Amino acid sequence: MNIGIVGLGLIGGSLGLEFKAQGHRVLGVSRKSATCERAIALGAVDQASTKADVLRDADLVFLCTPLGVMEATTKEIIPYLAPETTLTDVGSVKAWVVKTLEPLWPNFIGGHPMAGTAESGIDAAHLGLFHQAPYVLTPTRTTPSVAVQQVEAVVSTLQVRVHHCTPDEHDRAVAWISHLPVMVSASLIAVATNETDSTVLKLAHALASSGFRDTSRVGGGNPELGMMMAQYNQASLLRSLLAYRTQIDHVIDAVQNEDWSTIADLLQQTHQARPSFVEP
Amino acid sequence: MNIGIVGLGLIGGSLGLEFKAQGHRVLGVSRKSATCERAIALGAVDQASTKADVLRDADLVFLCTPLGVMEATTKEIIPYLAPETTLTDVGSVKAWVVKTLEPLWPNFIGGHPMAGTAESGIDAAHLGLFHQAPYVLTPTRTTPSVAVQQVEAVVSTLQVRVHHCTPDEHDRAVAWISHLPVMVSASLIAVATNETDSTVLKLAHALASSGFRDTSRVGGGNPELGMMMAQYNQASLLRSLLAYRTQIDHVIDAVQNEDWSTIADLLQQTHQARPSFVEP
Repeated sequence: MNIGIVGLGLIGGSLGLEFKAQGHRVLGVSRKSATCERAIALGAVDQASTKADVLRDADLVFLCTPLGVMEATTKEIIPYLAPETTLTDVGSVKAWVVKTLEPLWPNFIGGHPMAGTAESGIDAAHLGLFHQAPYVLTPTRTTPSVAVQQVEAVVSTLQVRVHHCTPDEHDRAVAWISHLPVMVSASLIAVATNETDSTVLKLAHALASSGFRDTSRVGGGNPELGMMMAQYNQASLLRSLLAYRTQIDHVIDAVQNEDWSTIADLLQQTHQARPSFVEP
Repeated sequence: MNIGIVGLGLIGGSLGLEFKAQGHRVLGVSRKSATCERAIALGAVDQASTKADVLRDADLVFLCTPLGVMEATTKEIIPYLAPETTLTDVGSVKAWVVKTLEPLWPNFIGGHPMAGTAESGIDAAHLGLFHQAPYVLTPTRTTPSVAVQQVEAVVSTLQVRVHHCTPDEHDRAVAWISHLPVMVSASLIAVATNETDSTVLKLAHALASSGFRDTSRVGGGNPELGMMMAQYNQASLLRSLLAYRTQIDHVIDAVQNEDWSTIADLLQQTHQARPSFVEP
């Protein structure tokens, strides 16, 4: 199969390595010619170009750019695609992407491989990145079934765990497990840092250990990524944030009223509930 | 020196192992005779008893029981202490402990070695537990300086980093870095678990990875410990929770109003601030 990859970063480059290893012909597109050359040198693509006409022979195209340029990039590449070409993306939000790209190219299906590393860019690309990771596909009622089957067949070869759901269901789920945690964690760092008593702040710096380290990790991560998530998943993030504020209100009421049995019940419940999220 | 240890769990047992290794004579007290026997067998104490009269010769006594029994235990042991004996504790809150124990035994100084493991009990005790850990001492204006010097000299031999502050400063600092994170993290698990759409909840369970794992860790931990912290550090925890709610309100306002520059500024600030807490 001829597989196009638009955007040769960590995800696009890693997809290219996998597909080439399977014997597919991989056609890459990047804004920078240096990235094209690097992708060829690393064996992530057979051909690469800053021009979209390299995609003329593609049967299937993976759109792997940042969310912010997906719409413009799709408009740039579609004049070069054969009508039967399937387009899919790897963006980390789905409702906005599907709503925006489906009208531009009906043979489109949204996707989200949930794999990543702290590194980014083509030089971070590697085989095995997607191994055992979830890969969410979000077909709509108008998605051609042939596109769904084709993308599922191809991504299944990456040894991923494929999930199907609506774009909204995806966005609500990732709001809980990814986007809300960023805001919860960042807010913790922000308030601790705003401590006005300098002795207490210095002590907090000196005494923080693994508990603070873990709880603050995602809130101290890549600011651009966190902002993008909030922006492109606004509705679901807001829904999660409002529920979260209500829960914090309950905790405040209980602590204020010395209602320790409510706190004990909460911690007992969360102790029991956490393994559903973190154990395979 | 003769060193008494009341409460032979992880902390008490580990202190005993260290002091015996240094050549001190260690006198242990536990409610359970089986624990006394185990502590002797492990070499954590020279003598151990369920009766406090074993402390008659102690120059310095470490109170290592749970917070909930510290007051009653102190009342039990003080009839057996020589007047010049120094008493110190290892509790994880300090204002309540100091306020409660100082009137019972004026030669008292609050302390908090910030070391621990997931395991507890005498069998988890080991040499090196305190190595490079912070050890906070909270003398008040009435603490005899000889007691401060004696405890500081003894705990310094554990290779800890000693900090001095008031009981309130300690409690405010640990509210930020330890007790608030538990409530923040537990609230995240609670709201995600309360998702009423079963498809979304199943997806959230399936898609959760390292971000959710880290942010939820302390909120899914030992419920009794979390409740004790809230109860005995109520004032400082409440202060932190109220500041936290205000911060969450700011995030909600920004997301609601699509004020992305506020979110970008927040995440930029927290990205820069986090290393002050988590890097040595």
